[in-house]
This record gives sequence, C-alpha cells and structure tokens, in this order.
Amino acid sequence: MSPKITTELLKQLRQVMKSPKYVQEPVQAYIVPSGDAHQSEYIAPCDCRRAFISGFDGSAGTAIVTEQHAAMWTDGRYFLQAAHQMDNNWTLMKMGLKDTPTQEDWLVSVLPEGSKVGVDPFIIPADQWKRMSKALRSAGHDLVPVKENLIDTIWTDCPQRPCKPLITLDLSYTGVSWRDKIVALRSKMAERKVLWFVVTALDEVAWLFNLRGSDVEYNPVFFAYAVIGMNTIRLFIDGDRMMDPAVREHLELDSTLEPEFKIQVMPYGSILSELQAVGAGLSPKEKVWLSDKASYALTEAIPKAYRYLTPYTPICIAKAVKNASETEGMRRAHIKDAVALCELFNWLEKEVPKGTVTEIIAADKAEEFRSQQKDFVELSFATISSTGPNGAIIHYKPVPETNRTLSVNEIYLLDSGAQYRDGTTDVTRTMHFGTPSAYEKECFTYVLKGHIAVSAAIFPNGTKGHLLDSFARSALWDCGLDYLHGTGHGVGSFLNVHEGPCGISYKTFADEPLEAGMIVSDEPGYYEDGSFGIRIENVVLVVPAETKYNFKNRGSLTFEPLTLVPIQTKMIDVNLLTQKECNWVNDYHQKCREVIGAELERQGRHEALRWLIQETEPLIRVQ
Amino acid sequence: MSPKITTELLKQLRQVMKSPKYVQEPVQAYIVPSGDAHQSEYIAPCDCRRAFISGFDGSAGTAIVTEQHAAMWTDGRYFLQAAHQMDNNWTLMKMGLKDTPTQEDWLVSVLPEGSKVGVDPFIIPADQWKRMSKALRSAGHDLVPVKENLIDTIWTDCPQRPCKPLITLDLSYTGVSWRDKIVALRSKMAERKVLWFVVTALDEVAWLFNLRGSDVEYNPVFFAYAVIGMNTIRLFIDGDRMMDPAVREHLELDSTLEPEFKIQVMPYGSILSELQAVGAGLSPKEKVWLSDKASYALTEAIPKAYRYLTPYTPICIAKAVKNASETEGMRRAHIKDAVALCELFNWLEKEVPKGTVTEIIAADKAEEFRSQQKDFVELSFATISSTGPNGAIIHYKPVPETNRTLSVNEIYLLDSGAQYRDGTTDVTRTMHFGTPSAYEKECFTYVLKGHIAVSAAIFPNGTKGHLLDSFARSALWDCGLDYLHGTGHGVGSFLNVHEGPCGISYKTFADEPLEAGMIVSDEPGYYEDGSFGIRIENVVLVVPAETKYNFKNRGSLTFEPLTLVPIQTKMIDVNLLTQKECNWVNDYHQKCREVIGAELERQGRHEALRWLIQETEPLIRVQ
Repeated sequence: MSPKITTELLKQLRQVMKSPKYVQEPVQAYIVPSGDAHQSEYIAPCDCRRAFISGFDGSAGTAIVTEQHAAMWTDGRYFLQAAHQMDNNWTLMKMGLKDTPTQEDWLVSVLPEGSKVGVDPFIIPADQWKRMSKALRSAGHDLVPVKENLIDTIWTDCPQRPCKPLITLDLSYTGVSWRDKIVALRSKMAERKVLWFVVTALDEVAWLFNLRGSDVEYNPVFFAYAVIGMNTIRLFIDGDRMMDPAVREHLELDSTLEPEFKIQVMPYGSILSELQAVGAGLSPKEKVWLSDKASYALTEAIPKAYRYLTPYTPICIAKAVKNASETEGMRRAHIKDAVALCELFNWLEKEVPKGTVTEIIAADKAEEFRSQQKDFVELSFATISSTGPNGAIIHYKPVPETNRTLSVNEIYLLDSGAQYRDGTTDVTRTMHFGTPSAYEKECFTYVLKGHIAVSAAIFPNGTKGHLLDSFARSALWDCGLDYLHGTGHGVGSFLNVHEGPCGISYKTFADEPLEAGMIVSDEPGYYEDGSFGIRIENVVLVVPAETKYNFKNRGSLTFEPLTLVPIQTKMIDVNLLTQKECNWVNDYHQKCREVIGAELERQGRHEALRWLIQETEPLIRVQ
Repeated sequence: MSPKITTELLKQLRQVMKSPKYVQEPVQAYIVPSGDAHQSEYIAPCDCRRAFISGFDGSAGTAIVTEQHAAMWTDGRYFLQAAHQMDNNWTLMKMGLKDTPTQEDWLVSVLPEGSKVGVDPFIIPADQWKRMSKALRSAGHDLVPVKENLIDTIWTDCPQRPCKPLITLDLSYTGVSWRDKIVALRSKMAERKVLWFVVTALDEVAWLFNLRGSDVEYNPVFFAYAVIGMNTIRLFIDGDRMMDPAVREHLELDSTLEPEFKIQVMPYGSILSELQAVGAGLSPKEKVWLSDKASYALTEAIPKAYRYLTPYTPICIAKAVKNASETEGMRRAHIKDAVALCELFNWLEKEVPKGTVTEIIAADKAEEFRSQQKDFVELSFATISSTGPNGAIIHYKPVPETNRTLSVNEIYLLDSGAQYRDGTTDVTRTMHFGTPSAYEKECFTYVLKGHIAVSAAIFPNGTKGHLLDSFARSALWDCGLDYLHGTGHGVGSFLNVHEGPCGISYKTFADEPLEAGMIVSDEPGYYEDGSFGIRIENVVLVVPAETKYNFKNRGSLTFEPLTLVPIQTKMIDVNLLTQKECNWVNDYHQKCREVIGAELERQGRHEALRWLIQETEPLIRVQ
C-alpha cells in the first residue's frame, strides 16, 4: 500500500475554501466527515469524499483541513491502515488515546481568532452540528454550513450517484403492505401529535415502501427521502426508476387511490426546498418529526419550535420487530446460508491440507456456494476471512497484501453473510483444520460458554439488550480474559445487516427494550494479538419464554437461534462445560442435523450432508 | 393515620406568593421540592418543608401549589402513604404511571398565560432548574428564583437548623490528613485547570476536613460549605462549633500555618455573597468547579463562562476509594455489627415462639445490641424490621399502626445498620423461626444465587457496576421472577450509608468504574405482595482478583464480603445450588465462624457463639 499523494488536492481544496464562488465568506477550516446525507453506515463510492481527499478509506474517520494543517481522526481499528494510506500532508489523530485532542479542541488550538469552520450541512447530523457549533462558538469561532460540497467541486472524476433499478417485495415477504405501514405510522404520528414525518434513513424508506435497491454495496437500499403527512405521501427519488411498470403497480401510482395514499414522486434533490415549504406553512403547535441524527440541513429546514426529534423513529422501532412473514423469510434464508457453509467447510476440510487455499480463495468460495442458493442477491458485508494472526484483527478483510494461506496449524475465522430476497444472514464460525492446542480449545470454550449464556438467557419483557452483555463475558472474565467489542447488533430483514434500535453491548444505554420478533446477533469472541482470533456468532430471534412463575405478569423472553451451522466440537474442551451447556450444544447440533440435513438432502448435497452428520455428533461430558 | 388539614396553610402560602414583601412580582405557582440546600438524601427537620405544607412525609416527593391547585408528585413506594397523609386540598400525581403528567406539563396545562413559577434557588439543583426553566419558557412562562423560602415565612414553629458539636477523626481512622486531602484536591484542580472548587455536599465537606457531625439523623454530617482555592481554604459553618479546642487543634486554626493551609472560617449564610465575589473577580479562562447537582443559587453565583460542572466531584470519587485505615475500620465495624446481630438472632430464636416480639421490639433490640459495641454512634438508617406481608414493602419502617408480631409462621426481614466511629454498616438477613415452605425456600435460594453471582464475580478493572446487575437477577429470571430495585449502592466510611459514584444497578449508566478499595452493597431480593419479602445483603469491598490470564494487562477485580453474618441455611434449598455456590456458602460461613466466633469469645458472649456455630454448619449437597 503506498500512500495517496494529496499535495495538489489539498491546494485546490484550500483555494475553494476561499473562493466566493463556493463560500459566502472564506472558511479557515473545512470538515470532511465519513457519512452520506442519510447517515448510512455503508456509503456509495460518490460519497467517499474523505477517502478521496486523504487516501484513507477505512469505514470511520473525519478529516479536517485548515490553511496550514490536514488532520484525520480515526479509531484504533484503523491506526495502521490510515498511517499507510495517507501521505505526510496529513496528521493522524488517534482517537481513544489520552493525548489526542478532540476535533473541537484541536480546531480551537490551531485556528486564528474569529475563524469560520465550514461543513456540508447535508453530511453532518444535527446532533453533531449542535455539539461542535457550541464548542466552537464558546471559543469565538463559527461553524458555518457550506451549501456546495467543496470536495465535490475538486473531485473531477467523481463517480455518479448510483440509481439502480428497484426490487418490489410482495406481501409474502413483507407481511404488511406499504399502505398499512403508512396507516400505522400515521397513528404513531397522531399519538405524538405531529403532522409530518420525515424519513431520512435509506433503510427506513426501503422498509416503509416495501422496496429494495442496490445503490449501496451490501445494503439493499436506494437513494431517496420521504415526507409523510396525515394526508400526503411524498417520495423523493431520482432517475427513471419510477417508470418501471412493476414499481408503478406496486406503489399504485396509476390507480385511482384515496388521496391520502396517493404517492407524489419528486426529484431527490428537491427535499430541502419542499421541507422548507412545509416548515414555512406550519401553525403553532404543528410539529414535524425527524430523527435527531437527520442532517443539519433538513433539521434546520423546520423552525426549531416545530421540530419533534427522537433518537429512534417509529419506523426504526417498527422495522426491528419482525412479523411472521419476515421471520419465516429469515428462517429460510438462514437454512440456505447454512447449506452454503456446510458445503464450504466440507470443501475446506479437504482442500486446506493441500496448502492452496488462501483467505481470499476461501471468501470467494463462500460467496460461490451462497450464490447457488435461491433468491441470493449479494453479500451482506465484506467477508472477514482470516487465519492465524489475521484473525485477531477484528474488522479484517483479506486483500492481496495481507492474504494468508489457510493451514492445519492455525485457527481460521470466517465472519460472513448474505442478502437473500427473504432475509439477511451474518454468521461467524472459528475452525481448526488440524489439531488445536489445549490453550486454543480453552479460549474457544470460554467464548462458547459466553455465546450460550446469551443465547439461553431468560429475561423479563422490557429488558434492554445491554443488560445481557455481561453474560457473554462472564466465563472469559473468570480467567482474566475479555474482548473489546459489543456482543450483538440488530439485523434487518433483507435490509442492513446492522440496524437499530436494539443490540447487546456494554457501550450503549439508549437501546430500545428487546421484544418478541426482534432479531439480533450473539457474537462474543476472544482475540490474541499476533496469534489468533475466535468468534462464535449466531443470528437469534427474540421469542417468548415459558417460565415456572410470572412476576407481575410481565412475561419472559429468550432467544431462538436462526443460524444453524455446526460449532466445531474439535475446538471444545468439553470438561469446561456444565452439563446444561453441553446439552445446549447437543440440542443445537441436533436441530442443525434435522433442519439443515433435510435441506442438504433435498438439494442432493450428499457430501456436505455427511460432513454435517459428522460435525453434529453429540458431545459427551465426563462427570 | 389521619391526614393533615392544610386549608389554612395553603391560604397563607397563596398570600405570600403575591406579597411584595417576599416576591418581586406575584408568582402563580410555587414549587416545594424535597431536598435541602446540599441535595442531601436525608434531611434535617427544619428542611422538611414539603412535609410541613402537605402532611406527606415520605422520602421523595415534590409539591406544587398554584392559586387553584395543590399537587404532589411521588413514586410507587409512597402512593398509599401520601394518599393517607394528605387532605383533599391535594391531588396525588402518581409518578411512573402512564397518564400522570410531568410537573412541567401539568404547570403548562393549569397556568394562565405568561405565569411566573417560583422556587427557592437554594433547594433546586442547577440541572433540574435548567430542565424545568426550558420547558416553562417554551410555553411562555417563567421559572423565577424566590430568595426567601415562602414555606419558612408561614412555618411559625419551624425547628431550628441543627448545630451540634463536631467529632474530629484522627489519622488512625482516616488514613489521610485533611491537609493531604487538600493537596490532592488542588492537584486535581490543576489537572483540569480550575482555580476554585466549591464543596456543596455535606458528606464531602465532612470527608475533606476529617470531621463528623450529627446535624442530620443517621448521617454523621454537619451543615457547612467549603470553597477551596489554590491558596485559600474557606469553611462556611455556623455556631460555636469552631470554639471547641479539639476542633481548633484538628484544623490547626491557631497555628502559624503556611498560608495555603490556613482555614478561614465564615458564617454558613455568607456562602452566596462570598461565591459571588469569587465569580466577580475571575479573569477569562479562570474556572470554578461545581457539582452539576449543586443548587441553582450557588451555580448562578458563577458566570456561566467560568463554570466547570461535573456529575461527580473529585472529592466524591476520592472518598469512594477507601484507604487501608478506612478499610480496616470498616472491617472492625462489621465485626462488631455481626456480634450484635448474632446476639439479636439468638434472642429472636428464643423469643419469637412466645409471640411477644413485634417488629418495633425487634428493631429496638437490634439497636440495643449494636449500642453495646465500641465506638457505636447511631443507626445508619431507619431499621426495616418487617414480617410477613410487611416484608414485601421494600422501604417499610414499622410504626405502631403497622407493627406486626413476629411468628414461627412468617418470614422475617431485617435490613439495618449502624454508624461506628470506625465505619458504617448495612446488612439484610431474611429468617424463618419455624419451618419455611418449599416455595419460600425456592425463592430464597434464587435470591442467594444472585447474591453469590455478584459477590463471586470476577471482572476487569474499569468495569462499571451497572454491568454486574444482571448477574444478581439471572437465577430469578430463569424462573420468571425479578425484583424492582437496584442491586447495590456505595457505602461511606463512617459517613452516608448511600454514597456515589459507584453502585450496581440497571437504572444508571453514569456510575464511575469500580476500583479496588470501593465499598458497595450486594442486595438482591424477591418480594411477593401481600405475602413476604426476601433480601440478602452484604457490604462488600472491591479487591484485586487473581486470574489465570491477564488480558491487555488490565488486571481483574472481585468482591470480599465485609459483612460476616450467617445466612440462614434453613431457608436454602441446597439442591438448587451448584457445587460452586454451595462451596461459597460454606467458605463464607467458615469465615463467619472464625472471625465473628473469635470476637464473640473475646466479648464473652457464649450463647450467641453457640448460635453462630450452629448456624454455620456446612451445607451438604447431594450430587
């Protein structure tokens, strides 16, 4: 990896920062955040502005350029990568280290008095704007919105914003029509006494209209906004996608609908002016509901007194609770995904000893097997295929420079998933193709104990996921071990593999309570720098639990694994398991055998079936 | 309990709310919070203004009086009591119920446009003021500070503010001199670049100067403030307490000290004007450090740009980590406390079957035995002595109207503690003096499993207590049971029995990480309304844990019980315990036998010793 030479680009950027063509007044600093206008986790190439200006293309980072300096803030996952990808015009600001200044403090320390700091108001979320603006103002500077994105003005070969065809999902996939979703949304709006709701997150637009797209890799979403009134629906979307007869029929664009379900299609770029018009027409006590993470530009379009901001939107919350059709779809998707992985692991067992399988080859093979399954669309994230020391890099993705050959001497960690038309998968298995050491087995078994502790946990209705995080760590903690990431995230239904508002992590307190129908991952791990990584991940469905008693009639919940892929028993030190844990593994493997075995049989995949049978032999614990 | 008749009082209050003698402009509503000027949990009789105006004397509640209405907000613990104690001038606002308006919303709904809402600025914490003021302003009203407390103007027989003699604590108790505490505080101030620190919490003043008082029942504190500069120390305190030669010597008031350790003693009431003078003399970048829970009055004395507010003060954090002298004192206090409880339980075993012991008698007897111990000062909170259904009332305190006789047919729950000169105790034991039912034993055993899960937990340095809360609930959750309170609170060293900044609760996320030397309670429970209550509480010390491995060299922590009182084995269903849990109980009882047995022997308390031996017989688990 050689760094990107940015001297000329920075010179150009510093010119436009002073050019009256783009800024009302010169800005002494310009902030380039990671995100897009929808606060997406994954972004399209045209939105990779921070990578363009700096060369650093990790998933998280904020660049700030002043007359004299160019600085990049990123976290521990990316210190090495950022240092490699950036030339020496850039200073790396290592977030999480004690001596690293915040962006605000750094700006205050380097800027001349009374400076203006510019940022694209569409890219910065309103809550971040507020924090930064306050800090700068108290030091005598101003955060100012720069309408035209200054990176775009110098990015001559900027890729086009994608505008790919849409997929319509019928009731058999979604369980609820978009009209019924609008009705439910309006009833939530009425409850909160708001007249308008602005849909800004891409997965929320897709979910609301039962549409999918492919504008962003791994995420089946499309660039659009929506503004829902009590009697109007406005969809802001570009291109000729609305000319597709299937889409027109799906959205009933040509029917004589009741007016409150008539969708007005408008250009993507007109959202701001339309919203400003909405804002200008409000009477006292009329409110507009937005996510508090919506962009500063859209939030400002509504006068402050009329804004109703919440951390989670009603769509985000409704979307998280999967209905019967979605749950069945997720089950089907996970069965197909397990078939692909049984094929893969059977293949790896044969091929790895030959010394010809690299991390990239294994990842490609996983994709190949998945793509053979019905309704496969694409991967749900970049496959983490890592062996030996690479496994200890939590967000590793093999590239030619790091690509390592799998062997019978190293642990192999595969974290992968796919988008199927009926559901989204995300599964991690850690395998050894030779003989694991006692220490490797010991660590694996602690991780497994944590995985089981979460998966088998019974907890009251209304419990927030973060209260379960320590269950996943307890066995590791007992031996002085731990892992430095959360235990689980929400998973979409043929949507984003990471979604809110629920999860299992020590880091958050603002998650919404778990309820039956929510789907999260359960993925504790253990990582030894320079040696190996272990992670065991299932996607699990929140289901009601039967309990002996029922305190205050609250009812209880537990998890049902949707992922049905064998957990390598060779890696388990069975004597470290309790009888209950041992039973859990055996029951789980029995279910894998029954459900995935039947599907392998049906698909005529006899070799993989033999592998499954062998891998799901019951554990026997010596008392 | 007959309600207090408040018609006349409310009439008088409404008059002073309009009287130019007390208010610049008439106020249309007046808020009477629970607290005192130091945001104390326990308050002196002269500060019980809300109880005076309403009759309701529970520990939590806020009264608001308008021209037309009088309303009281309190939580589920006090719905019944408040309803009994208040006459029908008052409307009870049941907090936590869905339809109950917030104070702000209620005010907005009942006030005429452009109203003024008054409150004593010394009683309302700054963070509450901010929230309420914002909500009222956005509805066109104003929250205004009313200097003179309006309740005090009509409270003709208001008790005097207590001004009791002080106790000086020497190094053998405190481990660190007040001068060294000042030095450490100033170094924290220098780190944060603040020039002044304002000590507003009573226990922080007491801790800083190694003084104790008895102005507030159960809490060995005294009314005072302190303002610490880099070269000055100002102590705001009333009465002739500073004439006591022991105090003068302790504070070196008559010595020729280095000027930076010279304490200026000033009248308690002069804090505001002195602080205003400090505020007026500040140059840019000079900051004053206050708790964000300090009163609005004191916070406002410092211009906003000069304030440095934190949720926990450096004193609060330093105070929580007990040094070797404090820890040893706490150990001694807990040994004496255990002696008293062995005496009590031995006495109860003999007396309860006679049918003559009431809850009040048992509580008094507990106090009697405690008062026989060396350095006993007072109780650390009102004894919860509760049998049968009273045990299910979590904050129960026996009064003649509710006083129940202990019997061999009901569970007895005793939650009690004391202040000794060397430490503070807080212990709960749940006993049956006859034959418990299988169900009672089952519930008790789940609570015990939760207690052990926390007490024996091993966790990394830097872990916050709230991450351990679910360990205490897991066994209950498995059977559909739970309890509706936190699991533990910080405990002071001959100071408040409840102190921050650490604790074990699902409710908070803002607790400071646990570190070796901190002391918390571990007190899971189970309560069945109308039947019984179970709680098992030890005070435990955070200590380093030895572990097999040491991830990232972080080190691990665990708990060591300071409380050494037998847990009634008769209540345990030993078959519900794992072997590890069974061993924990046996090890714990072995330690009780050794440590408390030796002390009982030393004190010649042979009957109690026999009781202890019998109660600490090892459990045997049938495999």
